[in-house]
Amino acid sequence: MPSRFRHAAIVGKYQARGIRPLLEEIAQFLVAQGLDVSFERDTAQATGVTDYDVVAPGALGVACDLGVVVGGDGTMLGIAREVARHGLPLVGINQGRLGFITDVPANHWREALGPMIAGDYEEEHRSMLEGSVWRDGERIFSGLSLNDVVVSRGATAGMVEVRIDVGDDFVANMRADGVIVATPTGSTAYALSAGGPILHPAIGGWVVVPIASHTLSNRPIVLPDAGEVRIGIVQGKDVSANFDMHNLASLLHGDQIRVRRSAHKVRFLHPRGWSYYATLRRKLRWYEGVV
Amino acid sequence: MPSRFRHAAIVGKYQARGIRPLLEEIAQFLVAQGLDVSFERDTAQATGVTDYDVVAPGALGVACDLGVVVGGDGTMLGIAREVARHGLPLVGINQGRLGFITDVPANHWREALGPMIAGDYEEEHRSMLEGSVWRDGERIFSGLSLNDVVVSRGATAGMVEVRIDVGDDFVANMRADGVIVATPTGSTAYALSAGGPILHPAIGGWVVVPIASHTLSNRPIVLPDAGEVRIGIVQGKDVSANFDMHNLASLLHGDQIRVRRSAHKVRFLHPRGWSYYATLRRKLRWYEGVV
Amino acid sequence: MPSRFRHAAIVGKYQARGIRPLLEEIAQFLVAQGLDVSFERDTAQATGVTDYDVVAPGALGVACDLGVVVGGDGTMLGIAREVARHGLPLVGINQGRLGFITDVPANHWREALGPMIAGDYEEEHRSMLEGSVWRDGERIFSGLSLNDVVVSRGATAGMVEVRIDVGDDFVANMRADGVIVATPTGSTAYALSAGGPILHPAIGGWVVVPIASHTLSNRPIVLPDAGEVRIGIVQGKDVSANFDMHNLASLLHGDQIRVRRSAHKVRFLHPRGWSYYATLRRKLRWYEGVV
Amino acid sequence: MPSRFRHAAIVGKYQARGIRPLLEEIAQFLVAQGLDVSFERDTAQATGVTDYDVVAPGALGVACDLGVVVGGDGTMLGIAREVARHGLPLVGINQGRLGFITDVPANHWREALGPMIAGDYEEEHRSMLEGSVWRDGERIFSGLSLNDVVVSRGATAGMVEVRIDVGDDFVANMRADGVIVATPTGSTAYALSAGGPILHPAIGGWVVVPIASHTLSNRPIVLPDAGEVRIGIVQGKDVSANFDMHNLASLLHGDQIRVRRSAHKVRFLHPRGWSYYATLRRKLRWYEGVV
Repeated sequence: MPSRFRHAAIVGKYQARGIRPLLEEIAQFLVAQGLDVSFERDTAQATGVTDYDVVAPGALGVACDLGVVVGGDGTMLGIAREVARHGLPLVGINQGRLGFITDVPANHWREALGPMIAGDYEEEHRSMLEGSVWRDGERIFSGLSLNDVVVSRGATAGMVEVRIDVGDDFVANMRADGVIVATPTGSTAYALSAGGPILHPAIGGWVVVPIASHTLSNRPIVLPDAGEVRIGIVQGKDVSANFDMHNLASLLHGDQIRVRRSAHKVRFLHPRGWSYYATLRRKLRWYEGVV
Repeated sequence: MPSRFRHAAIVGKYQARGIRPLLEEIAQFLVAQGLDVSFERDTAQATGVTDYDVVAPGALGVACDLGVVVGGDGTMLGIAREVARHGLPLVGINQGRLGFITDVPANHWREALGPMIAGDYEEEHRSMLEGSVWRDGERIFSGLSLNDVVVSRGATAGMVEVRIDVGDDFVANMRADGVIVATPTGSTAYALSAGGPILHPAIGGWVVVPIASHTLSNRPIVLPDAGEVRIGIVQGKDVSANFDMHNLASLLHGDQIRVRRSAHKVRFLHPRGWSYYATLRRKLRWYEGVV
Repeated sequence: MPSRFRHAAIVGKYQARGIRPLLEEIAQFLVAQGLDVSFERDTAQATGVTDYDVVAPGALGVACDLGVVVGGDGTMLGIAREVARHGLPLVGINQGRLGFITDVPANHWREALGPMIAGDYEEEHRSMLEGSVWRDGERIFSGLSLNDVVVSRGATAGMVEVRIDVGDDFVANMRADGVIVATPTGSTAYALSAGGPILHPAIGGWVVVPIASHTLSNRPIVLPDAGEVRIGIVQGKDVSANFDMHNLASLLHGDQIRVRRSAHKVRFLHPRGWSYYATLRRKLRWYEGVV
Repeated sequence: MPSRFRHAAIVGKYQARGIRPLLEEIAQFLVAQGLDVSFERDTAQATGVTDYDVVAPGALGVACDLGVVVGGDGTMLGIAREVARHGLPLVGINQGRLGFITDVPANHWREALGPMIAGDYEEEHRSMLEGSVWRDGERIFSGLSLNDVVVSRGATAGMVEVRIDVGDDFVANMRADGVIVATPTGSTAYALSAGGPILHPAIGGWVVVPIASHTLSNRPIVLPDAGEVRIGIVQGKDVSANFDMHNLASLLHGDQIRVRRSAHKVRFLHPRGWSYYATLRRKLRWYEGVV
């Protein structure tokens, strides 16, 4: 059995006021189990909790050795990027609908957390991508994504045309509402809506999926994540690039979005018996229902 | 520049009579370049060529250090499985339509082969899968596939239901005309017709694609090729399993098809400047045409 | 309120032994409501029921003014074609899973049938297609379909190539595992599995859907049912044509399948409040589940 | 042979300066054939042509009995809506890429127009839809569409949820980037990019297609155009409705878009021998290319 944890960080979703009682119960439970407990700074501010040490998001990975995240997949996406470089393992507790990466239901957190902090859990690593935007030879933006990079046309624009290159190879020109480059984690998010396949988290690749392709003969492609994928803006108005939640608007012709694998991985902990495939079936109703 | 070759094997397609002149020209060219040349046994028999040593398919990889294959992708599929365990590199010359893995056009073979036998080429490795069929705890069949394993219903049967498992995990029950497990090489063959994504050859995974799924909420999944995929026959009449070209009919309820990554890889040589993506665009008209 | 019925026919599925008690209860209920009741001949034979007049399938539409069909959609498909030319209205009672066209659940048949035989129901008409097979200028087969015509390759053949024409217009050559021409009723059956759209029953058209198209740029097309659709066999081994349940094997190159709208329509009666769309949602889980 | 025409209107695209010589040549040709010729007002202004009578767009259908439209499908969409209520027949001459509804190539206009104005042509009618937007019981917008109505989320919003109803029937709730209701003409435009089927122009129906559906079990549905389709905004930020080119932004929860078939049809004239299916194949590369 792996060694147990010493210092947990509690992280709640941005507008966390309503979940203060739940966060405090969890904190008390962890203290009772012998752990030190801190609150992530914004969570403490939003909830008004003052009984615990407060840690800035960027320091969580240094100060703590476990993150307990309460909220939806969006909350998890935000914090996971912050702590990935320190390898902080994360447990996700969802309040509402089952999340893909926040898979402990709020009404069973006690049964789930108990064994986990004692060291009985399943650990899983998720790759991230590092995206950057280049203009006239200069990098004007860079950011991490756990899900995807989405390059898309403006709301009233006709379409965007992008050119995809990998290393020295030209891949294809794509004309569409947009193009998504998704990690395995992102393959069950927007890329799935756009018609992409599901990539198991252990796949060392990205899927490139057009959104409403203007070409009938399109088909998603899974590219190895060892190389750099470059997306050049060929044509389009009000084109924007979206890195998980960070949006960069007003891209110009000739701008280029570059995507590499991040050196860091996100560590998720799940209760023993957790199954990636069961989550697919339950959350997406994948392969349920019969014609 | 890599070291050059010493002994080439000439391989033609099964009904190779019409290509005898082409095979002889290629053989003479290779001899003129200083290589020893042998003919694969069935090719020699089908064409009536007697001027060269003859080698059995299974011995090609021992006797020779280069295979020159003239025909379509089907011919290449057949020989590639035979020689993979010896790592014999293969060059494919297609006579008719451009193949995915026979990419040297017959009317340019001289310009292409010349530099390649001098050591100037691009080398690419393709993974294969080892499939087996189990009944009542016994293995009743096993075979290698470069493309895919296809489990399908009989022509007049309603559908087949299979249960997919990976390691200890249940993946899903699929009800469909059939289910394909394809390698990256196979992802541009039948799996693509059935709606699957394209997997770059460097992806360490397989794509599982249903054929005419009876479930609306189906979606292809890309699984890591590190584990074993098991396909259990739950229901269906006249169910068969197809490993590239070998067909095993009359599967029964409870039979299980198991798929593992083969320890061997196929080595393909391409002319310098060859591009995987260009082949996709030219052969599939991928991303061509605009709504 | 429409006029009520006088003479009901009871029709059960082929292997109807197990449903004898249910059929007899329904018959007694109808007699108690003042209707004459007959049993369809094969149903009487299969169940051993002898207390009622027996009517041959082809005479049901003459002798009776209501058909009560107990079984699945397959049973309904069979009898609907027999009685369509006489306009006999049909009620479908399903025992197992909800059917698309047998929508009264067996455990609620009494509540549903009572008002219906009193004249309180929703009536709906479904178009059928007349298919024929032509060889060397001669018609070698003809049949009616409520669902579809499916032209498909043999189980071990590579693909079938067909040429589609409508009136004087060439539509397209399609290379695939097969091609489906489906009525609106058939659009929620096999055509849906193959990737076709749903056609509301009031649409005066057919959808042509390839099965596992070898062409990326395929897309289903909805054709008006006013003209004749012709499917010519261009290439393929062991090609067969399937008209609902009747199968015609061993089609040859040059054979042609012709499809016209039948002059007759099937009349289905549903309980008041029945909704076509609710059946879609319940049976297909259409638009259920969220990414 | 139908009677010939007397008075043609010349219509060019909005920024028509570059096509002035072409428009004048066409006008002179028509005059030489004995027709009166007028210029649509905006076309005359944009090109500076002053030698011909000028007619306001809304009066074209009264003053003229033939419209010759030079431009792309967009130009044709605009003018077709204006003249539909007067039944003015339209010929479309495209300068650049082949259009779906502007099918006479600019370099062959003389050979095509000659026989057509003598009465030798194929005539085809296209249905339009009348869309309106209702808020709090009041109609706040109405417009005609030859292609489609598109309800979509704002560029940075997550998704839009709409509720579809037809007559008294609830169809489905759809969560997606947007939802398209397309005429047969629009089925080969944006709806095709979003994954919809092709509807032949003679089909009396509309296709409802989600854009990037958040539900795996979605599938397009073809609804009869006899009834009214209502799209209610359930959820979403910056939701807009687009009627061909007219955009109505900032829709609110509870707003409803209603779609009916217009009483008017667009009349398109094509050169003898024109084929709808040939246009599909050439423009979309439909069923071209082989896996």
